[in-house]
Amino acid sequence: MNTMAELRKDPVIGRWVIISTERARRPSDFGPDPVRPRGGHCVFCPGNEGETPREILALRAPETPPDTPGWSLRVVPNKFPALRIEGDLEPQGAGLYDWMNGIGAHEVVIETPDHTATLGSLPAAAAADVFWAYRGRIEDLKKDPRFEYVLIFKNHGEAAGASLEHPHSQLIATPIVPVMVEEELEGSARYFRKKERCVWCDIVRQERQGHGRVILEADGFIALAPFAPRFPFETWILPTAHRSAYEEIGRGEVRALAGLLGELLRRMDAVLSEPPFNFMLHTAPLRDPLLDHYHWHLEVIPKLTRVAGFEWGSGFFINPTPPEDAARYLRGEIS
Amino acid sequence: MNTMAELRKDPVIGRWVIISTERARRPSDFGPDPVRPRGGHCVFCPGNEGETPREILALRAPETPPDTPGWSLRVVPNKFPALRIEGDLEPQGAGLYDWMNGIGAHEVVIETPDHTATLGSLPAAAAADVFWAYRGRIEDLKKDPRFEYVLIFKNHGEAAGASLEHPHSQLIATPIVPVMVEEELEGSARYFRKKERCVWCDIVRQERQGHGRVILEADGFIALAPFAPRFPFETWILPTAHRSAYEEIGRGEVRALAGLLGELLRRMDAVLSEPPFNFMLHTAPLRDPLLDHYHWHLEVIPKLTRVAGFEWGSGFFINPTPPEDAARYLRGEIS
Repeated sequence: MNTMAELRKDPVIGRWVIISTERARRPSDFGPDPVRPRGGHCVFCPGNEGETPREILALRAPETPPDTPGWSLRVVPNKFPALRIEGDLEPQGAGLYDWMNGIGAHEVVIETPDHTATLGSLPAAAAADVFWAYRGRIEDLKKDPRFEYVLIFKNHGEAAGASLEHPHSQLIATPIVPVMVEEELEGSARYFRKKERCVWCDIVRQERQGHGRVILEADGFIALAPFAPRFPFETWILPTAHRSAYEEIGRGEVRALAGLLGELLRRMDAVLSEPPFNFMLHTAPLRDPLLDHYHWHLEVIPKLTRVAGFEWGSGFFINPTPPEDAARYLRGEIS
Repeated sequence: MNTMAELRKDPVIGRWVIISTERARRPSDFGPDPVRPRGGHCVFCPGNEGETPREILALRAPETPPDTPGWSLRVVPNKFPALRIEGDLEPQGAGLYDWMNGIGAHEVVIETPDHTATLGSLPAAAAADVFWAYRGRIEDLKKDPRFEYVLIFKNHGEAAGASLEHPHSQLIATPIVPVMVEEELEGSARYFRKKERCVWCDIVRQERQGHGRVILEADGFIALAPFAPRFPFETWILPTAHRSAYEEIGRGEVRALAGLLGELLRRMDAVLSEPPFNFMLHTAPLRDPLLDHYHWHLEVIPKLTRVAGFEWGSGFFINPTPPEDAARYLRGEIS
């Protein structure tokens, strides 16, 4: 058995995977997930701070010591990290294959002490703190020269991959820019060379002219159903002005962003009966933050359908809900 | 509401999606899947031929008429096709966006009359017939100049996306080469330009020298755990000699392929307790079948883990089982 995580590259298409030995699983480990008792013991709840690794960042009442109650938000290292923070990057190769040791950071943002809250139900100021914490963590991890990217994401609900119920999001810092961001960087650079405009700025402009895919717009942010969504009710949130690096966001902007996301999540809860969901933040690479052609955005995907052989085999997605219909439901025009 | 399926292209990364109105789903349609009674009525079982669209191809006893019992394998159009066979391709555009009407073929291969059989339990000759039918359908669909690709895939088990229990696989013919195959074509062409060798031929050579990832090899086919697998126990089956187009396969070769896959599935059933799984066949495009740099292969993926926000957001996959370990389990060296 291997003793350390590795980053391995597929020799044909160049896709990297993390072989995560920290979470190594034998065949018998793959049974149905154990049902977690609702309201049972929770390592993220106040009073249990000693059960997480030590906090990296917290918003807490004055004079309360770290890793004790009195906080409204905590960031801690993931107890079972996919990648490890210690060590130097050691790219290696043998014949066809390239790999490196699994260096990275894997952190958890505990969004609130309230076990039953959600980003849709939290007070606006508390939800804004979550988005402000993301900014702070990116700024901090950027100082580590080993890292090229910080991916922030949230799994809400077991079907969306959450293993704990308490409201939290995660970040993974990697020594490689993820392939999906690379594809966006390449596609948008190609567009910029031709048009001298940001493709997402053009999308916002074209969508505002009305094709029925805008869901919400307020205070410098827009939520829209993309023209070619992979999943039913997939929604993107973008700043309406050109912004490439999330970490440039200001205090007022995080309030507006959290407000718009909160409203979207409340509408999804109403229309789709509190669906499990994922969101992921796509922003510019750490070493190249200010780009004319890139525009950060948050992708929100309710988990409603199963991905099957055709999707895995082709990269084509079959989406049974036209985005124009999804937007009408989320605007409340049909029900 | 739209009345016809559309193929839509993402304006940034160029990914195509199928907006499938034939299967249009409203928010209330996304609840948990209804439990299908085991042993209940099955539209694919003998005697119920009238409940499927008319058969396109069948292996049946002499003098039995089409769409009646007496068959050992049937191919029928999918009753709820993601794409429609009728009409001309009409590429369209508006501003940033490109789309075309959803032309394609969507067929079901009913692999056996036996509701409870699997490709692992069928007699070798019957399993070989399934792989021979794939060849026949590709050859036939190739005559339709609207199609660029035929993707053959199988969803086995509800968690892997199967909506019917009776053993079946599917094919979707598309007017576009799927992005994952495009990526393989590009990556392998790049490799060929540099080395003048097929990258998969080189993979087979390097794996045979022993790194513990070969699972099985027999009669011109090899099953191996790839160096950088996305999923635990992901396995590729390749012809050991260079072959780019699946439809060039011979009668003896389909027997060997079905035999190797059957053995692999029986081992997966034993090691992983009859897991749900997907497989998908990657072969050269219909219009460009004979390529020095492309090598067809079958990707087999047991459905053991959930794909969550990090994977969807990054294109990175976190795989908790090193392929060297997976191969040892499937070779029976550890349990």
